[in-house]
Amino acid sequence: MNEACIGLIGFGTVGAGVVKILQENREILEARIGFPLRLKRIADLDLESDRGVEVDRSLLTRDAREVIEDPDISIVLELVGGHDPARQFILDSLANNKHVVTANKALLAEHGAQIFKAAHVAGRDIGFEAAVAGAIPILRSLREGLVANRFEKVMAILNGTCNFILSAMDDDPGVSFEQTLSRAQELGYAEADPVLDVDGIDTAHKLVLVLNLTHGIRIPVESVYVEGIRHIDNFDVEMAKEFLYKIKLLAVIKSLDGRVEARLHPTMIRRNHPLARVDGVFNGIYLKGDMVGDQLFYGRGAGREPTASAVVGDIVELARNMATNESCRVPPLGYPEDRIVSTGLMKMEDIETNYYLRVQALDRPGVLSKISGIMAEHSISIHSVIQKGRDRSGAVPIVFLTHVAREADIQKACRKIAELDVAEGPTGIIRIEDESLS
Amino acid sequence: MNEACIGLIGFGTVGAGVVKILQENREILEARIGFPLRLKRIADLDLESDRGVEVDRSLLTRDAREVIEDPDISIVLELVGGHDPARQFILDSLANNKHVVTANKALLAEHGAQIFKAAHVAGRDIGFEAAVAGAIPILRSLREGLVANRFEKVMAILNGTCNFILSAMDDDPGVSFEQTLSRAQELGYAEADPVLDVDGIDTAHKLVLVLNLTHGIRIPVESVYVEGIRHIDNFDVEMAKEFLYKIKLLAVIKSLDGRVEARLHPTMIRRNHPLARVDGVFNGIYLKGDMVGDQLFYGRGAGREPTASAVVGDIVELARNMATNESCRVPPLGYPEDRIVSTGLMKMEDIETNYYLRVQALDRPGVLSKISGIMAEHSISIHSVIQKGRDRSGAVPIVFLTHVAREADIQKACRKIAELDVAEGPTGIIRIEDESLS
Repeated sequence: MNEACIGLIGFGTVGAGVVKILQENREILEARIGFPLRLKRIADLDLESDRGVEVDRSLLTRDAREVIEDPDISIVLELVGGHDPARQFILDSLANNKHVVTANKALLAEHGAQIFKAAHVAGRDIGFEAAVAGAIPILRSLREGLVANRFEKVMAILNGTCNFILSAMDDDPGVSFEQTLSRAQELGYAEADPVLDVDGIDTAHKLVLVLNLTHGIRIPVESVYVEGIRHIDNFDVEMAKEFLYKIKLLAVIKSLDGRVEARLHPTMIRRNHPLARVDGVFNGIYLKGDMVGDQLFYGRGAGREPTASAVVGDIVELARNMATNESCRVPPLGYPEDRIVSTGLMKMEDIETNYYLRVQALDRPGVLSKISGIMAEHSISIHSVIQKGRDRSGAVPIVFLTHVAREADIQKACRKIAELDVAEGPTGIIRIEDESLS
Repeated sequence: MNEACIGLIGFGTVGAGVVKILQENREILEARIGFPLRLKRIADLDLESDRGVEVDRSLLTRDAREVIEDPDISIVLELVGGHDPARQFILDSLANNKHVVTANKALLAEHGAQIFKAAHVAGRDIGFEAAVAGAIPILRSLREGLVANRFEKVMAILNGTCNFILSAMDDDPGVSFEQTLSRAQELGYAEADPVLDVDGIDTAHKLVLVLNLTHGIRIPVESVYVEGIRHIDNFDVEMAKEFLYKIKLLAVIKSLDGRVEARLHPTMIRRNHPLARVDGVFNGIYLKGDMVGDQLFYGRGAGREPTASAVVGDIVELARNMATNESCRVPPLGYPEDRIVSTGLMKMEDIETNYYLRVQALDRPGVLSKISGIMAEHSISIHSVIQKGRDRSGAVPIVFLTHVAREADIQKACRKIAELDVAEGPTGIIRIEDESLS
């Protein structure tokens, strides 16, 4: 093969990173692949902003068609993001017999069925390693290196913004969620509008993609239980420490007796768990395979060069396939096993795990007895209780760690507790993943 | 494709693990690949021992030829180990147009050139993910997911036996190297003859394979500086702790201004370094890529199922290639870039790093001045010194941490120090990798 010819749509942060890698590491890439990668065209509506990389202006166009319809180009990079027109760019590229590389997790999580079906019909591949955990080659590892395993458990930190905030709150119990979020925004780790990150939506998209690879099932993003990190306060962080836990926003996938649970929420894990050491903007994926046992992948989940590194990894894979005149070597996401199985997924109310419950209650005789009585009625067995000091208002926080309990029972019990005269506000609930706690 | 037909030579621990996976995870493998994997023949001299898996006795043979010459078999697993006859089995299989999967790091490190050339000539692939870090898909990640990167640094714990011993000594300063080794042998973590492990030979083989993938150069194993862990004593472990370090047997690859260094020795790393948390029999690979930044892979580096998981991952890759009628999609190890570049490798005497030096010296006036004078003469700048207590014999250990110094200067200075009347025995040297120490 003479060269692999590439077209880029979307000259934003990641797109500029790809251009940078193709320039700076051109020689080493060519040595590793055996032929050069040529970037022939770059399409973006904005041709003026400085991206920190120099490109020949003749490569630039405002018209994505000039990439999609260029007969020389065999790999199209969709780095526009969002649903439309990104989706149409991908579908049109596939229809024009081009392979596609994208980092667009939202699009794949929500319209994966359509896109992967179109790829299958066209006999083309979709590379999307950059869509989950940035620089970490986790999707490839799940589909290839670890393919011999049933995945019993996956727990993953997949959003650097949330992990930065939770790590900072753990480091300094004096700073609130809001203060930490502001600092993350100043440092460029959080968007001006942080909803996608802190409310867990970004991570939920990634969870859907990972679940598809680990268990071959695809679920609508709406069917995933998603809880963000806004409600985590300093008191919870401090209590977690006292119990030797750390709070992380985790995507959790577990499979037990053929039933699969997939959920996303702030989670307490032991401070000596490998994931507890994944701090700051880093991502980490912990998994337990029936054959490999425990494994951890750690690295940068976002940023210009790390994400672009994953995009270029996909480009190289496609180029190597093309060199041997191949495609669709590894089964793609969601198709042909294209079955939506939200019913096979365990309902959130049926999951069983350990819980941290924080009740704000008036400090009166009999309060603890009333609360623990409600728990007993709902088959919730208490592992530890801590009640400390007294608020000026007369209300004190009482914290419970439970033995394994059922989500539905916890929810019911917490509603009952909130109805007590002595309770102030709703009960704080944080799930715990700790195998040493039965 | 109807099926991929496999023959196994070597029905030992890993071979039995492969059989187990092909049996227990048959359905999920078929669902993921799209067609079944069929194990047609198993060759081993010993057909009687119980391997903990049941196989149809008609599959068994004492004659490896019945695998190598079976026209149905397209993938041969060489899990015999050692040099001969393993090498001939591989060469004959390739000559018979079969792909090969092996976990034989020693063979590939020492005879890789011949084997990969034969594979190239035959147009067949060699899968060898299991040869390095067992269950961790590190080779695939280096060649594929991270292919866009120049690897600035790799530091890896690649031998579970050594890591178990060093972790145990760090946990309990009361146990010696010999005691810990005996315990490892009782637990089955160390061989009766531990030379290959504790003297670093096993890790050196893996280092040679990793270096080939990260830097495209192949060096004879003899050209690598290799130092095992026998000389690590409790005092060093305790001093490491005092300086907030942990001692690990590390394969170190660094590249600086086009020069590459590759070495293997006990190394002090900061206790908060991601690798410091890789304890017990686990393996860990930390790397720094110019685009991805820091990354860590953590998992089981040995054992029946973990190693077999890597072998089956390779089988699946080959089967997927075969289904699209392909081979040699990803460039193999060492060939065609088959150049032995021990000259391009930095000589050990030229490397520059930080050092921990332990001098056993008589406690007399002027001793510290003499020793530090010798260091100054050799351009070695001292970062910290600790001298504690007094031995009954009158000799005390004095410990120095140095700023960055040249290996040749350290060696010279240590020889000079050993010649002093006041010095008892040779100076203990442990290299330090700590970017915060200049």
